[in-house]
Amino acid sequence: MLVNGVPGNTISIRDRGLLYGDGVFRTLCVCEERPQHWPLHYQKLKNDCEKLGINCPDFASLSAELAGLMPAHPNAVFKIIVTRGLSARGYAPAPDAEPTHLWDISPVPDYPESLRTGVTLRLCGLRLATQPRLAGIKHLNRLENVLAAAECADADEGLLLDTDGRVVEGVRSNIFLISGERLITPDLSRCGVAGVQRDRVMAYAGNMGMAVEVRDVCLDELYAADAVFLTNSVFGLWPVAQFEQQRWLDLSRTAQFQVLFEQDESWLN
Amino acid sequence: MLVNGVPGNTISIRDRGLLYGDGVFRTLCVCEERPQHWPLHYQKLKNDCEKLGINCPDFASLSAELAGLMPAHPNAVFKIIVTRGLSARGYAPAPDAEPTHLWDISPVPDYPESLRTGVTLRLCGLRLATQPRLAGIKHLNRLENVLAAAECADADEGLLLDTDGRVVEGVRSNIFLISGERLITPDLSRCGVAGVQRDRVMAYAGNMGMAVEVRDVCLDELYAADAVFLTNSVFGLWPVAQFEQQRWLDLSRTAQFQVLFEQDESWLN
Repeated sequence: MLVNGVPGNTISIRDRGLLYGDGVFRTLCVCEERPQHWPLHYQKLKNDCEKLGINCPDFASLSAELAGLMPAHPNAVFKIIVTRGLSARGYAPAPDAEPTHLWDISPVPDYPESLRTGVTLRLCGLRLATQPRLAGIKHLNRLENVLAAAECADADEGLLLDTDGRVVEGVRSNIFLISGERLITPDLSRCGVAGVQRDRVMAYAGNMGMAVEVRDVCLDELYAADAVFLTNSVFGLWPVAQFEQQRWLDLSRTAQFQVLFEQDESWLN
Repeated sequence: MLVNGVPGNTISIRDRGLLYGDGVFRTLCVCEERPQHWPLHYQKLKNDCEKLGINCPDFASLSAELAGLMPAHPNAVFKIIVTRGLSARGYAPAPDAEPTHLWDISPVPDYPESLRTGVTLRLCGLRLATQPRLAGIKHLNRLENVLAAAECADADEGLLLDTDGRVVEGVRSNIFLISGERLITPDLSRCGVAGVQRDRVMAYAGNMGMAVEVRDVCLDELYAADAVFLTNSVFGLWPVAQFEQQRWLDLSRTAQFQVLFEQDESWLN
């Protein structure tokens, strides 16, 4: 663990990350001392910081910190958090605030192998609020995800709709529908988190000649899809075998995307 | 500063308060070693914890900590934060999580005396998202307030509407309209923070024989009100002298509520 470049595992109780959730984060896997898609994660971290007006540390310095941590943790999950830094007084951010940045490291989760061949998805009762100013950003205001995760703890993943009933994402993943030769994923301009793997899947589908549609998705479309799958940067890709009463027995349509998440050069770099 | 009952000013980077904003807080004034409305603040803290499924420390233990801190800080702003505690793995809360609780203390802000006789209120461009599951709770997911405060930094306070255009609250205050013999304040069942002073003002108005209406409020009603005022537990009550192009020159209607915020027994206990 590293806090502002120094070994440590605490932050000030006056850090705006704690006081207001005023910060952003990204989670990535390190595999055999290789940080998976680090440049893509950094780009999103930086973009998210810019949307909130937080000064993001530069790529070279974060990369150097990452390189220093990996030898002792060659296979692990790394989380980078950047907050707006210490609070002066009240909600208004001080323009000269020095951001806080920290790394946390945890073991790669030991998911059952069966999840790679199909998971159960459960509809969460909680609906995501629509806030265009925060949509897409992986910020530290994640109480909706906490409450939703508690609701869906007995399924492999929870499905989140927004307050208008549109399909948005999984509690900790992005969602994709395959319908004929089209790959469909929800538009995240009102709410949701835009993950690195979402970009990779869309680019890959485009390269395969599939039509990629980023738009509003309703529940009926999800039920009617030929295949549904979930992605995040820790578990990679999970095909959905069951959502509520709907089952997908033929997972071959999803298999073509699995290659993106195998332990090959594409996954590692 | 006290963290889990022990002097300190740091928390773990694995605390869910930082990772997800998974916690609640309250801010109160201590005046001549008397904590203003502490039982009311505690009740709201506890209610908010219950809504999120967080175990709130009991009244006696928090009161004892407060009593221990006050002699060294007889006139100060005290903030109590309760988080769900350390994270196990991911968003889902562990049922056995031991909450973190901490006190932070800061000087009473030196507001210009002129603010007590009328402030400027500015309409924020940011609209509050509507999330009934979190509405009213003073939780640590406060990025909307941060962005709104940055927008309205050149006014004394910012006015927040929700995404449907209803009047909700100030960035750091609750709002009241006086219209004839009615006291009107926005319903906070979709978004917003229900402050301790809001309850006190409503009870006081009822005791005075005013009709108290808690309901949806539109901007036109705000413009047309006889008087408008803001409350929070640090500045007390601020009459609104100007909101955008509308001015209120006669502040006598608000004066009857000022007594609630004077340094008298009512304010201190």
